[in-house]
Amino acid sequence: MKRQPSARVRVRRAPKRARYDRASIHRVLDRGCIAHVSFVSDEQPYCIPTLYARVGNRVLIHGSSASRMVRVLAAGAPACLAVTIFDGWVLARSAFETSANYDSVALLGSFRPIEGVEEKLGALEAFMEVVLPGRWAEVRSPSRQELNGTAILEMEIDEASVKTRNGPPDDDESPDAERDTWAGVIPLTRGYGLPEPAPGLRAGIALSPSIARLSGGRPR
Amino acid sequence: MKRQPSARVRVRRAPKRARYDRASIHRVLDRGCIAHVSFVSDEQPYCIPTLYARVGNRVLIHGSSASRMVRVLAAGAPACLAVTIFDGWVLARSAFETSANYDSVALLGSFRPIEGVEEKLGALEAFMEVVLPGRWAEVRSPSRQELNGTAILEMEIDEASVKTRNGPPDDDESPDAERDTWAGVIPLTRGYGLPEPAPGLRAGIALSPSIARLSGGRPR
Repeated sequence: MKRQPSARVRVRRAPKRARYDRASIHRVLDRGCIAHVSFVSDEQPYCIPTLYARVGNRVLIHGSSASRMVRVLAAGAPACLAVTIFDGWVLARSAFETSANYDSVALLGSFRPIEGVEEKLGALEAFMEVVLPGRWAEVRSPSRQELNGTAILEMEIDEASVKTRNGPPDDDESPDAERDTWAGVIPLTRGYGLPEPAPGLRAGIALSPSIARLSGGRPR
Repeated sequence: MKRQPSARVRVRRAPKRARYDRASIHRVLDRGCIAHVSFVSDEQPYCIPTLYARVGNRVLIHGSSASRMVRVLAAGAPACLAVTIFDGWVLARSAFETSANYDSVALLGSFRPIEGVEEKLGALEAFMEVVLPGRWAEVRSPSRQELNGTAILEMEIDEASVKTRNGPPDDDESPDAERDTWAGVIPLTRGYGLPEPAPGLRAGIALSPSIARLSGGRPR
């Protein structure tokens, strides 16, 4: 891991919100579940949302072997993977100081395909752990055909920056604080709703343990 | 608005989940508040999360005039703006059919700066309406200096695709439905937490009407 950020990832706007250390990068990645992955095809940038999993110091994504994203990325094209957690609105006394609390990371690099059957199964289990811990043991494992149709790509975490904002608005000490305008933070919350059984679920099948454990929990 | 999607935005994977009509595009844009914007600089794609607002058939973003994103985009570079709303996990009886419910849009195009003072103020009010309807009237308006330091960029909505998944897992009719595994959807919910007053909020200042109206509401 580079101690000094590269010029490409060094945060210029509000640099006090930036971090480049591995623990901060992993922390943000472990808070999220959906990444936006950018790549270029015929000089046009694309930005695709996708499930991801962090395993050690790598980030894994997957997709149909036939998809444009997979074809471009598997060839080693330069990519950017961004994960953003939106934590709340920061309501200052002015329009200008109004902001958001967030936790975000951008990784620059390129992907390479994971090929071995065991490695691919391990990656699919890692994805399932992100979706719902413990679910892998409850479902039918991938068939050879399903495995063959699924491409898994990995990126080593190397060139990356974290940008985070938290806490109250920045205008407590400004002349704006003389205004009679309420200022503070409105947090955003995320939770799970009640499980909705599939219409074809046979009578008498109980909620799986992995789902029952969610009760009171919070999504990534 | 093109009736036929361009080859660049036509959805190949799971095409039944795709829409290209203006109403669907606007619907997704109006559900979200944070976009990921991709652009290319020195052959490296970047992906930056940012607040956006839809005004008519345009999407607006803003940033510091000195930021890399603004400099590259204001010059008319090809861009992709993606908005993704994650609605829940789709728990099938197999790993392969496990999926997510989501509502997403990707716009391809380029941005141009908005220059006039009145137009810029109108755009900033549109951003504030996304953050919190009615807040604009409660806060101090931007000074000339603040306005000058803020660049506002607009993209006409033209080349775009919507991809949506909703509903139960797809394996109700498959042999997997014979398994004793619970299947269905776990919805994700979003809400507002209790407002957290700024440490410097003077005593006796009531919650602003815009915030009081949030009670029981749901974030975009």
